[in-house]
Amino acid sequence: MFGPGSGRRDLASEVDGLGRRRVLLITTKRGEPLATELAAPLGERMVGVFTDVQEHVPQEIAEAARTAAHEARADCLLSIGGGSVVGTAKAVAAEERLPIVAVPTTYSGSEMTPTFGLTSAGMKVTARSLDALPHTVIYDPELTLTLPPGITAASGMNALAHCVGAAYLPGTDPITLMVAEEGVRALSGGLLRSVREPDDLEARTEALYGAYLAGTALAAVGPATHHRICHMLGGAYGLPHARTHSVVLPYVARLKDVELARVADALGTLKASDGLRELSEQLGCPTSLAELGLPAAELDKAAQLLSAQGILDLPTARELLHVAYDGEWTAWTPT
Amino acid sequence: MFGPGSGRRDLASEVDGLGRRRVLLITTKRGEPLATELAAPLGERMVGVFTDVQEHVPQEIAEAARTAAHEARADCLLSIGGGSVVGTAKAVAAEERLPIVAVPTTYSGSEMTPTFGLTSAGMKVTARSLDALPHTVIYDPELTLTLPPGITAASGMNALAHCVGAAYLPGTDPITLMVAEEGVRALSGGLLRSVREPDDLEARTEALYGAYLAGTALAAVGPATHHRICHMLGGAYGLPHARTHSVVLPYVARLKDVELARVADALGTLKASDGLRELSEQLGCPTSLAELGLPAAELDKAAQLLSAQGILDLPTARELLHVAYDGEWTAWTPT
Repeated sequence: MFGPGSGRRDLASEVDGLGRRRVLLITTKRGEPLATELAAPLGERMVGVFTDVQEHVPQEIAEAARTAAHEARADCLLSIGGGSVVGTAKAVAAEERLPIVAVPTTYSGSEMTPTFGLTSAGMKVTARSLDALPHTVIYDPELTLTLPPGITAASGMNALAHCVGAAYLPGTDPITLMVAEEGVRALSGGLLRSVREPDDLEARTEALYGAYLAGTALAAVGPATHHRICHMLGGAYGLPHARTHSVVLPYVARLKDVELARVADALGTLKASDGLRELSEQLGCPTSLAELGLPAAELDKAAQLLSAQGILDLPTARELLHVAYDGEWTAWTPT
Repeated sequence: MFGPGSGRRDLASEVDGLGRRRVLLITTKRGEPLATELAAPLGERMVGVFTDVQEHVPQEIAEAARTAAHEARADCLLSIGGGSVVGTAKAVAAEERLPIVAVPTTYSGSEMTPTFGLTSAGMKVTARSLDALPHTVIYDPELTLTLPPGITAASGMNALAHCVGAAYLPGTDPITLMVAEEGVRALSGGLLRSVREPDDLEARTEALYGAYLAGTALAAVGPATHHRICHMLGGAYGLPHARTHSVVLPYVARLKDVELARVADALGTLKASDGLRELSEQLGCPTSLAELGLPAAELDKAAQLLSAQGILDLPTARELLHVAYDGEWTAWTPT
């Protein structure tokens, strides 16, 4: 479902349409007041709330959420929040086979995919199950009006990364390619206007539409090099998921500028990588891994991890991580 | 799969990939020599051939095909041909739960949809089952090089009709809308060139790509008014399926020109209906129901059928059928 006001208007009827009577709400502590308000029409059908969500979904948090679902005898999961929230719901749904109704409040796009990450002992592993794919997604751009510019930008760059990844993966079918390019168009326009004018509902609608396209593209093709680099860095060093995307994306795009000619068109630039870096700067995103707190001493180990996992060859991994660490741009041409 | 030569190259490995050992080939008598040649690498895995295919898939033909599958103890259906061939395979697959490998040789697009029609006692009914959706589709534009201009045009207009229908249905999601518009672009360009220069592999590739998009759009949204009119006329009066589409399409589009603004853009015309009629004439398609053999005396009864089935209101149905019968164009503005 898509439309301003749909969160307040349609949530209860969607749960009813699924024939479910016992809903576990999954959200963050910060998101709980809004989520409780949206879920109020469910009344006694709300049988529990789980708010202990953490980024990258640590294994023990997923288990705690499953226990909460058991104890509440939930027959439905209601996810209200961003990527980490729906990721937690997916980890429960995949094991318990409960349907998810997802109300995204960021631009992660994760609600459209059957994939989810789990982190344990510093390693993020990705699982895929159709049981984890939300049954219903309610996109309400009004709920994103209060998203601060920093999260708007980072979360949007994360979505943009899904589109870019789908565009350079060699096996992408032409329909997904169209979806990805339309996603780049919607996100690049919608995000800039949303960051400058957070109350602009039309801009928010465009950005959220782009996030939906991004999630759809990601679901069709799976994670690309870029995504896998960010997952590794997030899992191993606890870097913030979305902001890591905004730093790494232009560098990975520079390796793929030839494949990204149509993305460059959608961005209105000659090279996709330059357009993405420019957008990232205009959005006020961090542009170096140093800013995100990655220790310089870890760069070589991180490059080895990327190489060991077959994501990049070792020289490219070293080079990319070093320039992305410094945040250098114009000086860099991949060797 | 998509690519010149894929029919000859990849058919056997696709059947093997499904782990199937007993293939029933479904094709037409006319198509049998080519089909047998393509299927030759299957060797002893070919356990039967069914060629008694008829347009609109009469119920008794579907039953005969099911019997053939039983007698051959087939565990896989291989459909090589156009819409009637894959329609027959679907009627078998839906009941017997056998996977279909489809090799389309026309632009029907039907191989991408889970729907199929069955005709019995002059009524065409449409069924939908995911078991009927082909497991693998091998699009080989080389196989369409010998498609005569008349069938190229009619079959392509049928595909174009799926795109147009998806574009005016009110519930169409934005991704399907993109697919439909890209389909209009590919088909309108590819068909004209394919009719003028049947050996032009690039034109054939574009047209077949458009057919794939058309089938995808149809599968996502289901049949629109236009499609339902053609099904009724085909089932009740035995009119040729694809050519009926080419006659009826511009008239139905004229009722929907407001909703079809983006299709008009894709066709490069001011009104979609004018563009479709012009294309139909350039392709040498029939432009009147009279040419197709519909008796004038049946027009009122046909209008009543359309109205009784809730497809059009009676005055609109009468008006549309009468102008489409005569093939009048410029004089007609819907009242």
